[in-house]
Amino acid sequence: MNLSIICYFIGYVLRIEGVLMLLPAIVGAAYGEKQCYAFFAVAALTFLIGFALTFKRDKNQAFYAKEGFVAVALSWIALSLFGCLPFIFSGDIPRFADAFFETVSGFTTTGSSILSDVEALSQCSLLWRSFSHWIGGMGVLVFLLMILPTAGGSAMHLLKAESPGPQVGKTVPKLRESARILYIIYTVMTVVEIVILLCGGMPLFDAVTLSFGTAGTGGFAIKSTGLAEYSAFSQYVIAAFMILFGVNFNVYYLILIRKVKQAAKSEEVWWYFSAIALAVLTITLNTRQLFVNMEESFRSALFHVGSIITTTGYATYDFNNFPQLSKTILLGLMFMGACAGSTGGGIKVSRIIILLKSARDELARIVHPRAVRRVRLDGKPIEAETFRSVHAYMMAYIALFVVSMLLISVDDFDMTTNFSAVTAAINNIGPGFNVVGPMGSFGGFSDVSKYVFCFDMLAGRLELFPMLVLINPGTWRRALRRGRK
Amino acid sequence: MNLSIICYFIGYVLRIEGVLMLLPAIVGAAYGEKQCYAFFAVAALTFLIGFALTFKRDKNQAFYAKEGFVAVALSWIALSLFGCLPFIFSGDIPRFADAFFETVSGFTTTGSSILSDVEALSQCSLLWRSFSHWIGGMGVLVFLLMILPTAGGSAMHLLKAESPGPQVGKTVPKLRESARILYIIYTVMTVVEIVILLCGGMPLFDAVTLSFGTAGTGGFAIKSTGLAEYSAFSQYVIAAFMILFGVNFNVYYLILIRKVKQAAKSEEVWWYFSAIALAVLTITLNTRQLFVNMEESFRSALFHVGSIITTTGYATYDFNNFPQLSKTILLGLMFMGACAGSTGGGIKVSRIIILLKSARDELARIVHPRAVRRVRLDGKPIEAETFRSVHAYMMAYIALFVVSMLLISVDDFDMTTNFSAVTAAINNIGPGFNVVGPMGSFGGFSDVSKYVFCFDMLAGRLELFPMLVLINPGTWRRALRRGRK
Repeated sequence: MNLSIICYFIGYVLRIEGVLMLLPAIVGAAYGEKQCYAFFAVAALTFLIGFALTFKRDKNQAFYAKEGFVAVALSWIALSLFGCLPFIFSGDIPRFADAFFETVSGFTTTGSSILSDVEALSQCSLLWRSFSHWIGGMGVLVFLLMILPTAGGSAMHLLKAESPGPQVGKTVPKLRESARILYIIYTVMTVVEIVILLCGGMPLFDAVTLSFGTAGTGGFAIKSTGLAEYSAFSQYVIAAFMILFGVNFNVYYLILIRKVKQAAKSEEVWWYFSAIALAVLTITLNTRQLFVNMEESFRSALFHVGSIITTTGYATYDFNNFPQLSKTILLGLMFMGACAGSTGGGIKVSRIIILLKSARDELARIVHPRAVRRVRLDGKPIEAETFRSVHAYMMAYIALFVVSMLLISVDDFDMTTNFSAVTAAINNIGPGFNVVGPMGSFGGFSDVSKYVFCFDMLAGRLELFPMLVLINPGTWRRALRRGRK
Repeated sequence: MNLSIICYFIGYVLRIEGVLMLLPAIVGAAYGEKQCYAFFAVAALTFLIGFALTFKRDKNQAFYAKEGFVAVALSWIALSLFGCLPFIFSGDIPRFADAFFETVSGFTTTGSSILSDVEALSQCSLLWRSFSHWIGGMGVLVFLLMILPTAGGSAMHLLKAESPGPQVGKTVPKLRESARILYIIYTVMTVVEIVILLCGGMPLFDAVTLSFGTAGTGGFAIKSTGLAEYSAFSQYVIAAFMILFGVNFNVYYLILIRKVKQAAKSEEVWWYFSAIALAVLTITLNTRQLFVNMEESFRSALFHVGSIITTTGYATYDFNNFPQLSKTILLGLMFMGACAGSTGGGIKVSRIIILLKSARDELARIVHPRAVRRVRLDGKPIEAETFRSVHAYMMAYIALFVVSMLLISVDDFDMTTNFSAVTAAINNIGPGFNVVGPMGSFGGFSDVSKYVFCFDMLAGRLELFPMLVLINPGTWRRALRRGRK
């Protein structure tokens, strides 16, 4: 295990975080809040520690998949550890377990909160929470790729560990170029959303924070009632942008380079929009009696389907009160998640497609054993390697889910709360049902459960394996035996 | 599709059912119940229809995997259709949907009931319910293998479709021999249980019906309070036999032929007993305050862990009142199920082992990419084919689970009820939580939901694919186009 290069990466991440933390600090100063000093202090501290770690670069360039996975896992943990300090020092969220949970929830774009009264926070803390969604949404490491002075396989190994979806297949020079393009698309779309919301009459602070949350598919609200108080126009705009941020960004790239035909052929995007349409239609009709008219029922259905399938987690209504059919549909969408290569979480639509096709293939083998068949996605045959890794992912997912359920059940909440809380954490959604519903909070869980959720949120965000490699004894056994090599 | 040979098989199954139905008929006559006439009449009808179907055997012997799967699925449905008629004609369960549900639940060894007052049934109906567990437990088709005058691949294709577990690897002459041995072990163990229960002072009728339910891992009780009223001795005996019937029968076979060493090496059995020990220990401590003393708490833990992991479903206490940790452990065991090659349902311990090993293998590939590794079970490498089919099974399982959840959620019960009801049906357990808890019933669901549960119970019992092949349009498209060939 090449620990020195891992420290170097973590240092780089912390330097970036220190700089980014200046945004909430400056905004806090502008509002004349005393909490801004905590942000300035922690920003300086974070930058200095990052600087110290990157001061001297070791000559040992050995960087394999293992190092990539460990570096990614540890840098997200470091990001959250330093990110939660301003909450503690400013007194906004004084307890460490709570502040850490809130920050992990922010960076992993989950949006689950331990706060029961979010409006008691200072403006700078509110902005930092939402900004952490935006930072985590595209992944700081994708950002690193654009600027890091490294060459060769390391970028590839990093991206493999952080990339949201089953397939990575690009060369390194292209990687850097596409990381740049992804960030441009991401930033432009965020700015467009802010502008449209401002045109609709939303205050600047609200427009910026909510757009950060939408872009990163995060879901931290800045009012206790969620997004219920905003105008119908704002709700439609946010619903539309949530759905757009859940689309595979490759599709936007293809549209940009005028390969619209190829973009339109993406099976994943078709499934994604079909699932949305079907769910919105069913929920609109199923929840009709809860609302004054059909428009309200449609708006709520569109908003919550968009919010849940993209794993954002904003709410305009306490969907705990939906009929069971609508709630079950939402629960299903929580697992499905958004498209691979988007900022959303969950299992990802393309994985679901691959898994369903593999089950259908098994059926076809029984019925027509001698037919030669290959399972295809977007017209291309799926490699055995992809199948293997998608299946292994699902099994690791189920195992993590079961262990988490057992650990948090010690707190003795009801089964629906526990099940949906783990679902919300692993899939980076935010709210679940019952106690952790859209108007509830995770504050009632014990500290042990909060750390379990933190692990789940990080594991879910990083597609499981970085966190599992980190806690796998086999990763460290040889490293300790051989020492730093 | 060779429909004539399928009809022949179904006819054979019905002839056996007609004969077996004489047992409850005679018992009813001995008790002087008028309901026995319904049983005699349906027994005769079933036998005659079976006889008519097997009267002339077609010369076309074409019998492939497809025919095997369809034959198995249809013969279980036929078994349940005719099996439910005595309930209807005797007036004990007058509605068709209810009687069909109860019979499917019986033959699939599920043990879920739509009855709120089971003690209102006649003795012959009670015996038929429990007897159906015993018939379904070992599989009527395994029985068929012993006596059918067929040769070649058809027996293999049948067993493949019905066998409880991921691997089948025996030649046909061995198959028939081992089917005979399995039935001897099954019958002897059942008789031993009846004798021990009688020695403990249990009435004969109770000892026989409860032993049928234990042997088949079914779970129909004959009292409204479940097994709460029986003596501690009887509860211990039943708990022990439930656990024994959940062991892979190959292990007993190996012990019989004095290969004790090989039997002791079975990884699956080790995992099975370790899971039981760990669960019993935790639940004993976790539920300590609910019982008068440690012995009662231990007895309840042992009984319910044994009942749930083997998917039997007997209860001595309403485990809805357990603390959440204990309930979550039981929920986990519901999915795990018993050993492959036992009479129990669920995903099966060996599948869980294979799945966990495949996830661990993925982790090892990241950490040591160049190491040559093979995943092993009982010391033998697992074939890629086995991996593929186990993964496809899991995906079909999850897909069926999700679709079922959506369909039954229309009835608007709470999420824990729905989730555990589907869990109980697919894994052939019996009780779930909340409304369908051990002291509740499935009677409140709509008829549509009841048929969904019937499908799930049959699919779960037959390892999914026979039922999926049956409803797969591709199975029938060619058959219709080419006609009978």
